[in-house]
Amino acid sequence: MAGNTFGQLFRITTFGESHGMAIGVILDGCPAQLPIDAGFIQSELDKRRPGQSKITTQRKENDTVQILSGTFEGKSTGTPIAMLIPNEDQRSKDYNHNTDVYRPSHADYTYDVKYGIRDHRGGGRSSARETAARVAAGAVAKLLLKHHGIEVFAHVSSVGKIQAPNLPNDHIDKLLATREANIVRCADPATAHQMIDFIDGIRKEGDTVGGKISCIVKNCPAGLGDPVFDKLHADLGKSMLSINAVHGFEYGSGFAGSEMKGSDHNDLFLATEAGPKTRTNFSGGIQGGISNGMEINFTVAFKPVATIMHNQQTINAAGETAEIKGKGRHDPCVVPRAVVIVEAMAALVLADHLLRNKISRLQ
Amino acid sequence: MAGNTFGQLFRITTFGESHGMAIGVILDGCPAQLPIDAGFIQSELDKRRPGQSKITTQRKENDTVQILSGTFEGKSTGTPIAMLIPNEDQRSKDYNHNTDVYRPSHADYTYDVKYGIRDHRGGGRSSARETAARVAAGAVAKLLLKHHGIEVFAHVSSVGKIQAPNLPNDHIDKLLATREANIVRCADPATAHQMIDFIDGIRKEGDTVGGKISCIVKNCPAGLGDPVFDKLHADLGKSMLSINAVHGFEYGSGFAGSEMKGSDHNDLFLATEAGPKTRTNFSGGIQGGISNGMEINFTVAFKPVATIMHNQQTINAAGETAEIKGKGRHDPCVVPRAVVIVEAMAALVLADHLLRNKISRLQ
Amino acid sequence: MAGNTFGQLFRITTFGESHGMAIGVILDGCPAQLPIDAGFIQSELDKRRPGQSKITTQRKENDTVQILSGTFEGKSTGTPIAMLIPNEDQRSKDYNHNTDVYRPSHADYTYDVKYGIRDHRGGGRSSARETAARVAAGAVAKLLLKHHGIEVFAHVSSVGKIQAPNLPNDHIDKLLATREANIVRCADPATAHQMIDFIDGIRKEGDTVGGKISCIVKNCPAGLGDPVFDKLHADLGKSMLSINAVHGFEYGSGFAGSEMKGSDHNDLFLATEAGPKTRTNFSGGIQGGISNGMEINFTVAFKPVATIMHNQQTINAAGETAEIKGKGRHDPCVVPRAVVIVEAMAALVLADHLLRNKISRLQ
Amino acid sequence: MAGNTFGQLFRITTFGESHGMAIGVILDGCPAQLPIDAGFIQSELDKRRPGQSKITTQRKENDTVQILSGTFEGKSTGTPIAMLIPNEDQRSKDYNHNTDVYRPSHADYTYDVKYGIRDHRGGGRSSARETAARVAAGAVAKLLLKHHGIEVFAHVSSVGKIQAPNLPNDHIDKLLATREANIVRCADPATAHQMIDFIDGIRKEGDTVGGKISCIVKNCPAGLGDPVFDKLHADLGKSMLSINAVHGFEYGSGFAGSEMKGSDHNDLFLATEAGPKTRTNFSGGIQGGISNGMEINFTVAFKPVATIMHNQQTINAAGETAEIKGKGRHDPCVVPRAVVIVEAMAALVLADHLLRNKISRLQ
Repeated sequence: MAGNTFGQLFRITTFGESHGMAIGVILDGCPAQLPIDAGFIQSELDKRRPGQSKITTQRKENDTVQILSGTFEGKSTGTPIAMLIPNEDQRSKDYNHNTDVYRPSHADYTYDVKYGIRDHRGGGRSSARETAARVAAGAVAKLLLKHHGIEVFAHVSSVGKIQAPNLPNDHIDKLLATREANIVRCADPATAHQMIDFIDGIRKEGDTVGGKISCIVKNCPAGLGDPVFDKLHADLGKSMLSINAVHGFEYGSGFAGSEMKGSDHNDLFLATEAGPKTRTNFSGGIQGGISNGMEINFTVAFKPVATIMHNQQTINAAGETAEIKGKGRHDPCVVPRAVVIVEAMAALVLADHLLRNKISRLQ
Repeated sequence: MAGNTFGQLFRITTFGESHGMAIGVILDGCPAQLPIDAGFIQSELDKRRPGQSKITTQRKENDTVQILSGTFEGKSTGTPIAMLIPNEDQRSKDYNHNTDVYRPSHADYTYDVKYGIRDHRGGGRSSARETAARVAAGAVAKLLLKHHGIEVFAHVSSVGKIQAPNLPNDHIDKLLATREANIVRCADPATAHQMIDFIDGIRKEGDTVGGKISCIVKNCPAGLGDPVFDKLHADLGKSMLSINAVHGFEYGSGFAGSEMKGSDHNDLFLATEAGPKTRTNFSGGIQGGISNGMEINFTVAFKPVATIMHNQQTINAAGETAEIKGKGRHDPCVVPRAVVIVEAMAALVLADHLLRNKISRLQ
Repeated sequence: MAGNTFGQLFRITTFGESHGMAIGVILDGCPAQLPIDAGFIQSELDKRRPGQSKITTQRKENDTVQILSGTFEGKSTGTPIAMLIPNEDQRSKDYNHNTDVYRPSHADYTYDVKYGIRDHRGGGRSSARETAARVAAGAVAKLLLKHHGIEVFAHVSSVGKIQAPNLPNDHIDKLLATREANIVRCADPATAHQMIDFIDGIRKEGDTVGGKISCIVKNCPAGLGDPVFDKLHADLGKSMLSINAVHGFEYGSGFAGSEMKGSDHNDLFLATEAGPKTRTNFSGGIQGGISNGMEINFTVAFKPVATIMHNQQTINAAGETAEIKGKGRHDPCVVPRAVVIVEAMAALVLADHLLRNKISRLQ
Repeated sequence: MAGNTFGQLFRITTFGESHGMAIGVILDGCPAQLPIDAGFIQSELDKRRPGQSKITTQRKENDTVQILSGTFEGKSTGTPIAMLIPNEDQRSKDYNHNTDVYRPSHADYTYDVKYGIRDHRGGGRSSARETAARVAAGAVAKLLLKHHGIEVFAHVSSVGKIQAPNLPNDHIDKLLATREANIVRCADPATAHQMIDFIDGIRKEGDTVGGKISCIVKNCPAGLGDPVFDKLHADLGKSMLSINAVHGFEYGSGFAGSEMKGSDHNDLFLATEAGPKTRTNFSGGIQGGISNGMEINFTVAFKPVATIMHNQQTINAAGETAEIKGKGRHDPCVVPRAVVIVEAMAALVLADHLLRNKISRLQ
């Protein structure tokens, strides 16, 4: 109820603060007998890890995950899978300067108002460090999806005003290889080059910039998603909006669809040998909240990171005018590291609805 | 679990099909002693009611609500408030022509795949008629919010490419009066005029068009919203994306924020006599998922209605090519009637988090 | 959250007061394609109906159920099944004498303390009339269980100190026939006769008496129930304790088991042609919270009905000493009408765990 | 959903197997600003710890708890409190003899049927070792209750057929001192002496025996508990039945109440200077599922521990007859160590309903 749990049947609860002893997650509801590839989980965490390139924060965290429970001889047992990621490079002293000063566009002020107490070190619970726990759980979700042939892929589709072209219709493996070949994680190499240069410039200015991540889901069977409130895209939307710094979500035709006519927007059904398809996919693979077997696609907008290297005017806990110094370690642009977080949250939603759909009718 | 329940503490469960006996809702968790103004609930339903103007569907439904339980001598008792809205003008025969044919960009196909059985009459459960139940419950949520001084206001901010200017900083009552003075429910009279003409033209073409609704929340206290997954904007986003035809959600700076720099985007805190304020409000009144006391604002994108008066190619239940006739009653543009649905869902989310926040700390 | 919802996947929410317009239930999560036999649902309600014999309350309620949604052409569609039972014979004036006076061992005082407002007519929401909604939903659960071959049977095993012998190992149909042949619903005719005489005497004294109901579940497959907190017997226990007037629950060896030695109590496994069995069944068909394929059995203790025909000392809403008159209509002993309630709640728990178990492992 | 979560607003999720790396718990929903006394949490765990006396299992576990998150400078912050208890003395080899053999009246068989995979070492997830996590979380619940003046006390009220007299009406501190002065944890010294001798004899026989634990709650305010399904005693019942080896629960008059007449059983209200009281307390402090301000009392029945030092007939995973050897470490009687578990679960239920009640009405 207090907001640290996500999912109904494939359900995670995360815990931990940025500069506490550890962060972690309990995943409850993973079906028994799923092979749990610990190496894969770690490789996912490595994609989110700080300090991986010149355009990410230089905080050094190995983010080494320990699986504490729920597996036996390499397989899930149906009991809760607890995973722990110790914090290593906390440097809490870096944050002594803002114990009583509210950083603009951070959660410092709102946590203080809400709880009357706050672990100010590195943002405490509000730090994006929490998302490492989601990535670990999302990796298990991906293993479950892969078992059912479903694949999730995201990449950076824009940084500032630099926009990547639409994804080519390639195999996920090829898209992944292209994306991982550059540090900004855009699947279009030419655009990636521009983005990296741009972010590096922003970094040198001590500033930050926003961006967008686009995600596709391939081979999702028709039938996932529950009317009325738990529409597949509604749960995807909530999952994305729960990621730090996300300010917008759209799927299928999205905001542009609001400008279209029905006669252009309707996705006409086609009878094909491989079963029903639609001629266009303005529905983004979801109709009436339920997947229709076409590719699912959506886009997530991230605001610029709030921590900048400039001094800024603000207030202190007493409500008086104050100034905050521009220091600490941070990302000049959050989207390269957030790609795997978007995939993780999407995988968690799909895994949940995959299970939910198993009981939607008598067999 | 089957997706017909929304909210945690202020929680609704809806039921009913477009052409069944009735639709309705149980609201559980409304605090005792709240005056329940049945006239206000009905007036809210009247704003969503079909047949209210030339630019809405001509189906005739009075949408008369009956309160079956949960109140005593005009006040809530703390027990479930059940509300029933009988269906009157079903004309199910209108839908006989699509018993076995899937309407493009509707939920016909996906429901059939998921459940293997489907009430095809008027879309059954997937019909937007279900949202009347949400409006009834949302009206009670508004009464609770009003008791705490919080006000919710939405209006049509775009139809097709016709975009309204930003809202003036007026009292809600004045905005409401302006909005209700035109049938498209835009708070800018000049834009409203254009929108109505445009929709009327679309209607005569037998076509439909999308649009956007923008919503603000005034006087929301700081502290509503729960980290990590139940951020206030994440729950608002889910609630909006669960409304039929919604394809996108953004709050604060939204998608445009993804193009900005941190130094421009950060909302600097100001010490004022009325307490902390921010100079700008790119955060949309929510920081770290928790309201910060500034005005909350967000925008919702609706795709064009899928039912058009044109014949369209499709497939039938056997997977064969078929044609669907353009007939039936429908809205040329959904947003005028959806304004009150957006407000209702926003009110439900806020009421839920208002209650949730009452237990966030020792008193 | 407010306590009117039961079940996770096969989930009900009930509403309504004793003397309001109607009571009812929304059942969400019933799998699609289940034949819904409306006649069976009504026949279950008829067993709980007041006024059915000389040893039940003389309030006249037909308890005619209307199915408002969720079925199409006689089958469930996977959408919420709403059922409504209008109140007919309210005679609210009967309760005018206790508007401000707290009936001993009723919920009048506690509701007033909790909510500060109370529908005093017939106990309002605290009336056992609410259980009719459970019986309606439980009937659907029974249909689902029957589809899987599982059968639930309960009967009155004691009234006051009159205790029935253990059930013979007969077919459910035969047990049902024997039970329904007497108005106290005990499956042992000789004991039934004693019980009826005893209750009739109690009734003439204007008094009431408690009793017990025992329940068995036949053909329950092994595997239902979830560790750790949602053990099958824990959910059965909660479901039974949520029934008005229940003061105790035990399964298998129950309270007597606390006096036994492990060497006597252990249920030794036997290899049989029909698969694993246990020599004894002190486990009551449940081990580690999960059904083991043996017959499930449990017993529920009901206190005597609190409404008696004697004047009693009490207090009023001002906290002053008062007297309450012995009048109104009531049951001298609740167990004959509660048999079908016990079955309904057991069926709801089993249906829920039947669905939950479908996702416990990869298939 | 998979059964490892308990509570609505004050909510725990536990993880871990008997012989894995660690067990633990996430407590979500603890209000901010509660002083968290780590020493008290450890002292509670010490009461459940194995190896504490001659009548408990000799497994050596220090059960040292680490608080990983959710506190700052000694107080709760409103974020999840994660607690970890490493496993130390696993000796998994002790369990090699029953890898493929089902121990009678254990959960080996049912876990295998349900999941098709099982951590057989020490019972894996089905081990009562999991309850240490509940005790840690229950200790925090007790701190919250104490902050509101509410106190929970349990003791061993019977072992086999040895029954303690009713508790004297003493201060909790005095009862606690008396109870902790003997290793069986009975608050009546004379009975304790008999119980210890009896258990010691049972232990020497290599056998086990059941018992009962009775629990009282003092100073519970009126108003806790939610109609209809989440009655206070229903949630208490479920919480108790979820503890390993529990076969029965009763509150107030319990099973004996089923033999009484209403005229004897009704608790007449008395007007006193300290507010409303009842002359008797057959209601066990709960009426209509809501606490009435009187002392809450209930009793829990535990079956004998299934692990005995005798060889027993059973079956193996292939369904063939087999024999299981009597070895391993175990408790001859579980109730002395279970006293603090009963208190912990009661405290968790009360803390949950304490929070739930804060939103039951407008303030």
